[in-house]
Amino acid sequence: MNVYEKYFKLISKRERAIFEGAITMGALFHQFIGTPVNSKTVDGIEKAMKEAMELQPCINEVKIIINREMLGQIKNEFQYISLSGDMLDIKVFSEYEGHMAVIRMKFIEELQYPLMYVEEVK
Amino acid sequence: MNVYEKYFKLISKRERAIFEGAITMGALFHQFIGTPVNSKTVDGIEKAMKEAMELQPCINEVKIIINREMLGQIKNEFQYISLSGDMLDIKVFSEYEGHMAVIRMKFIEELQYPLMYVEEVK
Amino acid sequence: MNVYEKYFKLISKRERAIFEGAITMGALFHQFIGTPVNSKTVDGIEKAMKEAMELQPCINEVKIIINREMLGQIKNEFQYISLSGDMLDIKVFSEYEGHMAVIRMKFIEELQYPLMYVEEVK
Amino acid sequence: MNVYEKYFKLISKRERAIFEGAITMGALFHQFIGTPVNSKTVDGIEKAMKEAMELQPCINEVKIIINREMLGQIKNEFQYISLSGDMLDIKVFSEYEGHMAVIRMKFIEELQYPLMYVEEVK
Repeated sequence: MNVYEKYFKLISKRERAIFEGAITMGALFHQFIGTPVNSKTVDGIEKAMKEAMELQPCINEVKIIINREMLGQIKNEFQYISLSGDMLDIKVFSEYEGHMAVIRMKFIEELQYPLMYVEEVK
Repeated sequence: MNVYEKYFKLISKRERAIFEGAITMGALFHQFIGTPVNSKTVDGIEKAMKEAMELQPCINEVKIIINREMLGQIKNEFQYISLSGDMLDIKVFSEYEGHMAVIRMKFIEELQYPLMYVEEVK
Repeated sequence: MNVYEKYFKLISKRERAIFEGAITMGALFHQFIGTPVNSKTVDGIEKAMKEAMELQPCINEVKIIINREMLGQIKNEFQYISLSGDMLDIKVFSEYEGHMAVIRMKFIEELQYPLMYVEEVK
Repeated sequence: MNVYEKYFKLISKRERAIFEGAITMGALFHQFIGTPVNSKTVDGIEKAMKEAMELQPCINEVKIIINREMLGQIKNEFQYISLSGDMLDIKVFSEYEGHMAVIRMKFIEELQYPLMYVEEVK
């Protein structure tokens, strides 16, 4: 047993998978929002965001899609924009001892908000 | 029912409280790490961090303590340092329909890591 | 002379004031973009941002205005939004040995961009 | 002339190069500090940081070195650490109409501080 397991004895394995996925989703959003990005750099930043967040405990995989259509419509002089929540579609796959959760974030039109929610858990 | 409740139908009320608390803890860390701080400004930044994170869904209260001893030992010419994980002790109190979770982050000496964990859930 | 003055011997005093003001403006934007904010918390976060950035070298004062009109129009379920560049009007007053620069950032409609520029220097 | 040149009429071309380089250095630090990183992900995050910051106005090139020795000494259970200022050595090359500035940031032992300074200007 890892030395830190004792800090999680109050919750089930399934809850642990949800917990760790949620931590990573909150972290990802607030770490990278504001980063300059355009169509030429988007592949690299997506990959770096993915790799950084896959380091966190219990994270099997992170899938990040930055909206290319929005990048294609940049209208300012500077040919890039700051990464914002409405451009992101993210899935975080977390697992703890056989229990798996998929945490999703995407911009929900009816909410006008980049909602973080639980898409799958098993 | 709020229009976004449908996004959480796969999880229990207790799991929802854990989920929302974890999101907020991950967000808090990655939003504010790096902020310049010293003994004179610490009260204000603690309060602003607390108020910002209490806006998030299901968050009843956030308690943040930035280590004053570490601020008292600043040895550089500039009389401030960048906020880092080893200076923080945070409790996030989240609640969803009667279920409550306390998510904690503090620097654990034996782990040499600012661990985020579940301190209480009921 | 402070021990770090040798690192600036290539530039004039006026250039030093511009340099330090610009550092602080870039820092401020990328530290705080993404922070949750609404009409109730805006005063506290403005003050904390100001105090944090006034700690940096050569910074006399920072004035920050977050657009209240935009906060008043929040339409989502959650009653807050993420701080973004188009909501900010910032002045950084930097000074080095009698030379003063005012660095400004505001959203420029014709550029569709939160431009950082030099508003005054003397 | 770009439509935004009028915002810089108070400063010389040389000062403009210094200004833009300084903005980018402050931005880079505060955007990425806190990002999870280890020896396996360091190449990708360095590249993404570089590409993001090369998008900013007047920036010709950004060179970033994250200290591999520090990554090799990670002692916690989790096999990664949060990116911090003492791990970074950065050069930002900015240019405006024939004037060039090299802005440097590195951790200075005698200052115990990641100093941002002007390394070259011509």
